[in-house]
Amino acid sequence: MPKVVFQPSRREVEVADGENLLQAAAKADVLINASCGGEGTCGKCKVRVQGNVKTDDPRSRLSVEERDNGMVLACQSTVAGDLIVEVPLESELLGKGAARIKTLAATTSDWNERLAALSANPVLSKIALEINPPSLEDSVSDSTRVLRELRKALQTEDVGIDRDLMQRLGGILREGDWRVTASILYCGARPILANLEAGDTTAANYVLAVDIGTTTISAQIVDVAAKTILGEASSYNGQISLGEDVISRMVYAKKGDGLQVLQSRVVASIEQLLGKLIKRTKVRAAEIGAAVVAGNTVMTHLLLGVPTDTIREAPYVAAFRFAPLVKAADIGLQSLGRAYVLAYPCVASYLGGDITSGVVASGLIHGPELSLYIDIGTNGEIVLGNSEWLLGCSCSAGPAFEGAGVKDGVRSIPGAIEKVSIDRDDFETVFDTIGGKLAAGICGSGLIDVMAEMLRSGVLDKRGKIDMDIDCKRVRQGPYGPEFVVAWESMTSVGHDIVITEVDVDNLMRAKAAVYAGITTLVDSVGVHMGDLERVFIAGSFGNYIRVKEAVSIGLLPDLPEEKYSFVGNGSLLGCAMAAVDKSKLDYAAEITKAMSYQELSADNTFMERYMAALFLPHTDESQFPSLAGDK
Amino acid sequence: MPKVVFQPSRREVEVADGENLLQAAAKADVLINASCGGEGTCGKCKVRVQGNVKTDDPRSRLSVEERDNGMVLACQSTVAGDLIVEVPLESELLGKGAARIKTLAATTSDWNERLAALSANPVLSKIALEINPPSLEDSVSDSTRVLRELRKALQTEDVGIDRDLMQRLGGILREGDWRVTASILYCGARPILANLEAGDTTAANYVLAVDIGTTTISAQIVDVAAKTILGEASSYNGQISLGEDVISRMVYAKKGDGLQVLQSRVVASIEQLLGKLIKRTKVRAAEIGAAVVAGNTVMTHLLLGVPTDTIREAPYVAAFRFAPLVKAADIGLQSLGRAYVLAYPCVASYLGGDITSGVVASGLIHGPELSLYIDIGTNGEIVLGNSEWLLGCSCSAGPAFEGAGVKDGVRSIPGAIEKVSIDRDDFETVFDTIGGKLAAGICGSGLIDVMAEMLRSGVLDKRGKIDMDIDCKRVRQGPYGPEFVVAWESMTSVGHDIVITEVDVDNLMRAKAAVYAGITTLVDSVGVHMGDLERVFIAGSFGNYIRVKEAVSIGLLPDLPEEKYSFVGNGSLLGCAMAAVDKSKLDYAAEITKAMSYQELSADNTFMERYMAALFLPHTDESQFPSLAGDK
Repeated sequence: MPKVVFQPSRREVEVADGENLLQAAAKADVLINASCGGEGTCGKCKVRVQGNVKTDDPRSRLSVEERDNGMVLACQSTVAGDLIVEVPLESELLGKGAARIKTLAATTSDWNERLAALSANPVLSKIALEINPPSLEDSVSDSTRVLRELRKALQTEDVGIDRDLMQRLGGILREGDWRVTASILYCGARPILANLEAGDTTAANYVLAVDIGTTTISAQIVDVAAKTILGEASSYNGQISLGEDVISRMVYAKKGDGLQVLQSRVVASIEQLLGKLIKRTKVRAAEIGAAVVAGNTVMTHLLLGVPTDTIREAPYVAAFRFAPLVKAADIGLQSLGRAYVLAYPCVASYLGGDITSGVVASGLIHGPELSLYIDIGTNGEIVLGNSEWLLGCSCSAGPAFEGAGVKDGVRSIPGAIEKVSIDRDDFETVFDTIGGKLAAGICGSGLIDVMAEMLRSGVLDKRGKIDMDIDCKRVRQGPYGPEFVVAWESMTSVGHDIVITEVDVDNLMRAKAAVYAGITTLVDSVGVHMGDLERVFIAGSFGNYIRVKEAVSIGLLPDLPEEKYSFVGNGSLLGCAMAAVDKSKLDYAAEITKAMSYQELSADNTFMERYMAALFLPHTDESQFPSLAGDK
Repeated sequence: MPKVVFQPSRREVEVADGENLLQAAAKADVLINASCGGEGTCGKCKVRVQGNVKTDDPRSRLSVEERDNGMVLACQSTVAGDLIVEVPLESELLGKGAARIKTLAATTSDWNERLAALSANPVLSKIALEINPPSLEDSVSDSTRVLRELRKALQTEDVGIDRDLMQRLGGILREGDWRVTASILYCGARPILANLEAGDTTAANYVLAVDIGTTTISAQIVDVAAKTILGEASSYNGQISLGEDVISRMVYAKKGDGLQVLQSRVVASIEQLLGKLIKRTKVRAAEIGAAVVAGNTVMTHLLLGVPTDTIREAPYVAAFRFAPLVKAADIGLQSLGRAYVLAYPCVASYLGGDITSGVVASGLIHGPELSLYIDIGTNGEIVLGNSEWLLGCSCSAGPAFEGAGVKDGVRSIPGAIEKVSIDRDDFETVFDTIGGKLAAGICGSGLIDVMAEMLRSGVLDKRGKIDMDIDCKRVRQGPYGPEFVVAWESMTSVGHDIVITEVDVDNLMRAKAAVYAGITTLVDSVGVHMGDLERVFIAGSFGNYIRVKEAVSIGLLPDLPEEKYSFVGNGSLLGCAMAAVDKSKLDYAAEITKAMSYQELSADNTFMERYMAALFLPHTDESQFPSLAGDK
């Protein structure tokens, strides 16, 4: 059978002679935009072929130049033997007018750059020791012998020792013939000998970084010595079937053994991710000496099995801000057994460790510039301030931008539609998916794009209603009411059209209104103007980036020049990875936690007013979005 | 049936008319010395009766005065109706020439005196707190709220919090309506909030004190607030069936899951004692916030489940000197669950926490006087020094003085023979038992007495051989060779004669030789003379006291004036009880541990020579025992 190779993804597939090129691409899980659904009318599925192809272009959608250059319409071409198909980069197709904003940490290489820039001050530091073997003249105990060397190395008297290690100490010392590697963990100011390994293992120092979101959990294995991310994996939080948001989780936690069930669910999710990462990176679980985790306050409590009852009701009191240092086995994370678990501290009941982590990762606290940090997850958390002062708040945005509560919403997984444009005339769509695969759904950044483009093209009005008078098969009445087709079934891997419904739009509008109302409440409360903001950091699991212009145009983000914006990506996870390499990040987080004022919005009438005013696209007060004037 | 009441014990019994008075006493578990076995020949079973008695004294063993005073021989008297029988105090019978030495802590009232003299600085201190309830204006977390008050109360910034407590914190605060009692534990310099209880529970502060001996485990519940011992219980160490001494325990620990089995055995023994104490004292397990334990190095390792392999063989290296702070649940001591377990530190592999505890309890370290501390347990441990310097050693004495390895040896239980005298002419014995009950065996102090009296009366020669030429039915050939009958069956609760065999004597001689050789090695090594010793502290589970003159006469203790001696009793347990009330005792122990030099005797030729020389009664070099010259 003929072999078809797609470039630049190098995906290969063997297909029957005469197979349609679009179908061959689908079989290879390669996305080729064909907004008309393969009817040869939109002309968007242009590819460049080398090899044996039969092609026909009845409506002459290609220029002579393109034809001479080997271009064909995939939907109008069939395989006639071995073939190389070059698929134009989707990003190029969408490139015009969709400038990326400055990205602090979207891709792994961004992350590794951030980690490489840190000073090596690991959360778990390793020191190779050569120890004098005991003799009758010097027969002090094994632990005294090790601590004696450690005190010299660390130049401090007060060194603790992990109590479980005591049981293994003697064996390790002798197995290593008195050459061992000590893992040191700082508990407050006091260093603790957390582990000991035979031989010199200083090069093998790994930390698990985990962002525990209400909806999504993401984990990385960080190679501390090399300051690089070895692998990343994410999945839905296993608690999700017990409640979609933190409130319903807390309700569940109060019933019978609900707290234990929730704890075991989140731990099982982490175990699964860890399993995948171990398989992928070849790091052994025993080589992972610590886990740095960040989650909102409820997630952090549930991870530690601490009741959340008092968080739920006014005056919304958490059990702790600073989580106690625990070992993985203590929370049931058996495969990491002896690893210490360090959690980013929480500021308040609804401003948790994911925010302190992200704020640290963003670098907001390191400058005098008036800055805003916005994390759009299941909740929207907003921090305003600089190196001198910090004010934070939280608003229930709902999980819409994480893909939950939206019919075809997905997390930023491979195949997620992350960019979309809609033709102003015929409403045809062109989109990018993560990894260039067949579409699996729409992730956060895609949802922002779709909303913005639907609004701009007139599919959506300012109240969020779909214009059913538009004569286009993409605009239709679906089982859930009016909907817009973003991707036809043939371009998806899910077996049905991918759509946005009016209900989805409603959910997204409420989410964006909550975030924007939070921002304005915070900014106004300190007596500054939106224009005074010098830097805005955007964090969230939207996908690999966010297009500021689109987010502004739906009224999610304030109307500021693009250059003020930076995209932090998963700031919470980034903060964990950074702390693995440089533990001072956790110390900064502790300072933030103590310094930050928290503004409770739930009882704030001005917030409710602002929220109602923001339930419009972009906003009832268009003067707040001057750059959109005349935008169509 | 006639009722017979025995005084001063107030024991009552109903017996048939005509019952022999000795038998009636036995039924009431009252010991009346009758060294001839009730034949009316020894005249030692004199009692004073009021009431209906028939008596006959054919050989006129009683004086007229005694008869007029209501005295009869119990063995020659029968019950003829209700009767009160006054049994002369055995201690009076034995009183002549058996002056007690100064006792630091033999009885509970001695102990309570010691505890009452301590400053209140408990290992777990309780503070009643009134906490401002949270409000929307002040909604910091529960733990921050509590720690805020604690920091004020303790006047320190760095306060830790027990991680398990975190899970219960919120509930307790609200249950107590924001009036709670905090239990504070110091871990090094850092205070830790170890527990929180609703309401003011400062008066209910209990600590379990445990001495973990190789042979015997003793435990007390200490009322910290009242500075008193509420109850004491002891039993054999449940490990004993797996090996009699530390060496055989270590051998067992190395096999398969031997270590875990040994740990669970010792923990089960503690659980049993705890169960008894709780029943007796009505203290609830949850009110016991800490346990202070002391044991030799091997016992401390096994309690914590730490391998002992390296202790067994040269260079005899322990895993630790300072045991890590653990919680009872961590070592399987479930009924104390959340209590912290603090162990006295060990100086060396064969000089453990029982010694640091005892040395602290004795007060040896508080004066400039040259002092000796001798603990005679399964091992003999000896410490020489004063407040300026300390030198220690250990010698394998074997468990003979704890009653093990001696045919009729027992611990100092009720019924244990603790004092004995032997008539120089007819070899009849008079003895005291603990609690004045029928004899159950011979405990440590009784064994010393028996040896000394057998030697003095000529039953035993200086080599430890029984003189079988003596014409007395107490000297006889038994199933284990020559033996001496201390108590006839009729005076025991065990159903057979209680004897000392030549094999027992041999074991006791080896034990005393090891102790004495250790003492002389230590004293000589620092270039002082025995006579320079200003204070000698004797610790051990001999019984309630030790008679120095007897111990000197068999060559166990150096020949020094009695006033230099003090009896500490179970010094190890006393140190634990004292630390419960005043934690500075544990700090002293840490200083001792760091300051003490350890002299390894096992490879010391002079020790072996001294040991061989001491295998004699009292010693091959009689000049070391001048006070015994002419003693018979």
